[in-house]
Amino acid sequence: MYRSHTNGELRLANAGQEVTLAGWVQTVRKFGAITFVDLRDRYGITQLLFGEELNKQLEENPLGREFVIQAKGKVNERSNKNLNIATGEIELIVSNFTILNKSAVPPFTIQDDTDGGDDLRMKYRYLDLRRNAVKKNLELRYNVGRAARNYLHNNGFMDIETPFLIKSTPEGARDFVVPSRMNPGQFYALPQSPQTFKQLLMVSGYDRYYQIVKCFRDEDLRADRQPEFTQIDCEMAFVEQEDILSMFEGMVRHIFKDVKDIDYTDTIERMTWEEAMWTYGNDKPDIRFGMQLCNLKFPSHTFTTKESIASLINGADFQVFDSAETVIAIAVPGCAEYTRKQTDEITEWVKRPQIGMKGLVFIKVNTDGTYKSSVDKFYDESRLKAIADAAGAKPGDLVLLLAGTEERTRKATSELRLEMGKRLGLRKDNEFRLLWVLDFPLFEYDEDGNRWVARHHPFTSPKPSDISTMINNNPVIENAAEYLKHPYANIKANAYDMVLNGNEIGGGSIRIFQRELQEKMFAALGMDAEEQQHKFGFLLGAFEYGAPPHGGIAFGFDRLCSILGGSESIRDFIAFPKNNAGRDVMLDAPASIDDKQFTELQIKLNLQ
Amino acid sequence: MYRSHTNGELRLANAGQEVTLAGWVQTVRKFGAITFVDLRDRYGITQLLFGEELNKQLEENPLGREFVIQAKGKVNERSNKNLNIATGEIELIVSNFTILNKSAVPPFTIQDDTDGGDDLRMKYRYLDLRRNAVKKNLELRYNVGRAARNYLHNNGFMDIETPFLIKSTPEGARDFVVPSRMNPGQFYALPQSPQTFKQLLMVSGYDRYYQIVKCFRDEDLRADRQPEFTQIDCEMAFVEQEDILSMFEGMVRHIFKDVKDIDYTDTIERMTWEEAMWTYGNDKPDIRFGMQLCNLKFPSHTFTTKESIASLINGADFQVFDSAETVIAIAVPGCAEYTRKQTDEITEWVKRPQIGMKGLVFIKVNTDGTYKSSVDKFYDESRLKAIADAAGAKPGDLVLLLAGTEERTRKATSELRLEMGKRLGLRKDNEFRLLWVLDFPLFEYDEDGNRWVARHHPFTSPKPSDISTMINNNPVIENAAEYLKHPYANIKANAYDMVLNGNEIGGGSIRIFQRELQEKMFAALGMDAEEQQHKFGFLLGAFEYGAPPHGGIAFGFDRLCSILGGSESIRDFIAFPKNNAGRDVMLDAPASIDDKQFTELQIKLNLQ
Repeated sequence: MYRSHTNGELRLANAGQEVTLAGWVQTVRKFGAITFVDLRDRYGITQLLFGEELNKQLEENPLGREFVIQAKGKVNERSNKNLNIATGEIELIVSNFTILNKSAVPPFTIQDDTDGGDDLRMKYRYLDLRRNAVKKNLELRYNVGRAARNYLHNNGFMDIETPFLIKSTPEGARDFVVPSRMNPGQFYALPQSPQTFKQLLMVSGYDRYYQIVKCFRDEDLRADRQPEFTQIDCEMAFVEQEDILSMFEGMVRHIFKDVKDIDYTDTIERMTWEEAMWTYGNDKPDIRFGMQLCNLKFPSHTFTTKESIASLINGADFQVFDSAETVIAIAVPGCAEYTRKQTDEITEWVKRPQIGMKGLVFIKVNTDGTYKSSVDKFYDESRLKAIADAAGAKPGDLVLLLAGTEERTRKATSELRLEMGKRLGLRKDNEFRLLWVLDFPLFEYDEDGNRWVARHHPFTSPKPSDISTMINNNPVIENAAEYLKHPYANIKANAYDMVLNGNEIGGGSIRIFQRELQEKMFAALGMDAEEQQHKFGFLLGAFEYGAPPHGGIAFGFDRLCSILGGSESIRDFIAFPKNNAGRDVMLDAPASIDDKQFTELQIKLNLQ
Repeated sequence: MYRSHTNGELRLANAGQEVTLAGWVQTVRKFGAITFVDLRDRYGITQLLFGEELNKQLEENPLGREFVIQAKGKVNERSNKNLNIATGEIELIVSNFTILNKSAVPPFTIQDDTDGGDDLRMKYRYLDLRRNAVKKNLELRYNVGRAARNYLHNNGFMDIETPFLIKSTPEGARDFVVPSRMNPGQFYALPQSPQTFKQLLMVSGYDRYYQIVKCFRDEDLRADRQPEFTQIDCEMAFVEQEDILSMFEGMVRHIFKDVKDIDYTDTIERMTWEEAMWTYGNDKPDIRFGMQLCNLKFPSHTFTTKESIASLINGADFQVFDSAETVIAIAVPGCAEYTRKQTDEITEWVKRPQIGMKGLVFIKVNTDGTYKSSVDKFYDESRLKAIADAAGAKPGDLVLLLAGTEERTRKATSELRLEMGKRLGLRKDNEFRLLWVLDFPLFEYDEDGNRWVARHHPFTSPKPSDISTMINNNPVIENAAEYLKHPYANIKANAYDMVLNGNEIGGGSIRIFQRELQEKMFAALGMDAEEQQHKFGFLLGAFEYGAPPHGGIAFGFDRLCSILGGSESIRDFIAFPKNNAGRDVMLDAPASIDDKQFTELQIKLNLQ
């Protein structure tokens, strides 16, 4: 070993001991004839004191930032203690030292507040990873993984590795494919998830499976997506939805306690998908704050169980509302005194292309009991009051109303709610609120193909009460215009998402385990028997030999870590992430390959 | 939950309780009006008793092998106890049952001694995985992984994920490549190991890294290779060879104790590569038994420190030995009484193409003090005695001698030794002998390119004493015929392999951490500066910013598990293995892909 102790280890009790340290030079400070060096490693920082007798050697071998050195000497009690760091009561009086490796001047400072921009830090990721901020993230990631493993182990789950070179069955996202040299003209695919394998393991009787595993999706990357990402992937046999919810509430509580020392003892709320869409405009609501949606107007085919209160706004000759399919309001607390400039700015915000609304209506609920609105000329005070009351506004609140087509308006109101929550400091990094969203629709309608697509994936079971509806009806949509009247439109999935602070951190379902139902599902997605057999023959086969009821869940490990770490970006929690073009700028990958590789793989480029 | 207890859980203490069980029907036996069913799950088997009152229901819903059922009833003490299984003191008196899923008759029996052939079992792997023999292997694998993780965690190692979509830098084995849709004409490669990433993590100061990780090599598959395989991959900073050896001896001892309850307290033997080749003809010797090689004759350029004893065989007019480059003997214990038929059979064995020798000479060391040999007419008794003594033969032993060119003869003698060890029962599945092999040559000579190749990999450091030889000499080989005289031919690597029962289970090295030395290494392998920069610019760059001394090791996880499980085949320890053509016969992968995928990836086939 190049050291007897790490740089985070020495305490007052070690005073007088001869020790050897090794690490990186964080800072060099000269005080007269004496030189102080802060020596850093993963475990901490120790102050080294170089006395006058070492000056000649230091002049001949000057130390610079990020040099790697080894220093021997005696541990000494510091006169000037630094109680902010664990080793701050001691220093090392250096008797001799060796430069193990020099360092060029780093392209950015290795500090929490670095002067390096994103591109530079990604190119020199090996230096960026030295920064304490990044190191803390990767440590958190390690701790979350270990806590999950321990919990799952203690609950009888087995880590079983599933293959990475599998078969391409594009259904939903695009596969990455790998040409097979030994099987010319054929390709493997990288798994988008181990879904079918974990189901086969249930058929094989492994009962409780987990894996922390890389998955791959060749999608156009949005700001915070990666082509390779990691899942905590789990499956259980002989379970119903409630068993899964309870098991994985336990896992998340365990992670909170183990990693963050947070006792999450609150009941974890549950909400149906319909309720989430109605109340928050979103299937992964951030419930750290209220500001719930007031659905003033909505089309007759959505939320059929809810009562319409369109009379509150209709018939005032305000064409925007009268002609709108949907009008939704939120009451923003304490913002009645916003200036014209401020309401204009919010209006501009909702008109941005990402939000896409045409404008914004506001009602100020003044503390003196009066109302002031941008649509004063259409609505008198009593009507303004009725609308504000419906939105749950209190004196001092600002009611914001959006109008337009159903989907866009709902989404925009949800975005506006989140934005106002952020501006008002209602979305705190250190507050955590978990939520289960349940009872998703099993299918979505695909207009292009006039067919159904699986909202979750094709292996998700319908609710037990909907199985007969699925079996006994023809999935074909005869009348595209009236697809909502097809019995499949109302089938609910036996699926669940776990939401943390407005982010989906996990999702899963009870699976189909009967061949007949699985075939019906594939048929609904437009696969004929031949295609079913070609793509999923192994799974249909497995269901013939005693498949047990089973279900599971997968957590987005990168996302879970980033939220627990209080960050918006998953990239900060991945050691070697890729950029938005799917490139690793440090490696400069992907890259061209040799002619020999093309020849061996029997493929060639076909650039357009 | 579909059950209140598992099938491995109920004991006499549960007698009288009302419980619900679920699982697979292992057997159905009728005794008069009563039916017994053995119900199986991952945890065990519980006997169910169906009384007369259920006969009508059983007739209407007959149970078959591998049916999945749920059964409710009362736990009862068995009159006829089966003390071989944990639940053997009780049975469940079934009050009612439900068939959760039927099963077709499986294509082979789900038993330890199955009647299914290899191909059939691979096609229906999900059924093969139900067999106890396979389940035990995967449980062992899980236990080995968990023991390794716990040991590494307790020693300060952090699990850090490295990327799977990297850059192709073919050097040694062939890469699997992945076309990038977002970067047309460019390809990712799948990692052959996380080697450079773990080194970067050391440069980044993570100090102790590990990962249990999939790696990929596109090689022609021998009997027991897989295109994707798993490594326990580890790296440490500020270490020398001795630190690594001691840390990972500890890990393997921990695994032995934790998984096999074996206290491996013996000192783990160490042997140089030269000594291993001299004594066992092999760089991964099985030291569970002796039968060491007696090197009667060898070329002057190999084992230059060893004394030649060729005079024992030379000059007897036996042309085969006189003209041979190499003659090696082993003394097989207790086989002096082999019949002519038996010695002939061994002769045929060494003449098989896989071994490739022209013949075999034997000397029987009879217990009466006489000698009998196949070359009696060339060697008198005193010479036969001298040869047998040199080979360490005792009365009753059979000395076997092989002659030919150095490499083939040494390899053949090693194979013969292993074969005789196997035949004599000296290689016991339940005996474990660990060994470190040290001081490998750093380079091998590549005749085709008249250049050096790295024996381990290009990141392995030479021994500290050989660094100046490497730096101060030109790696170019001016005179191909005399490459052995090049200073690089004698450079030893700072590398080590861990060998268990004749299998390499782990290998690693202290790494180069200085840019100059790394450049020299790349140059020795024939890479010019431009190629170095293109392929490994990131690593050379990292070495400029304070790279610490570091080293590591990787264990072949599949192999380690198979040896601990007492099996020759790694395939038995992989949930979903591929066959020798790299195919997953269950999935039928690899397979063709859609035209749309070709178009999006901008590649096409170029079949020859």
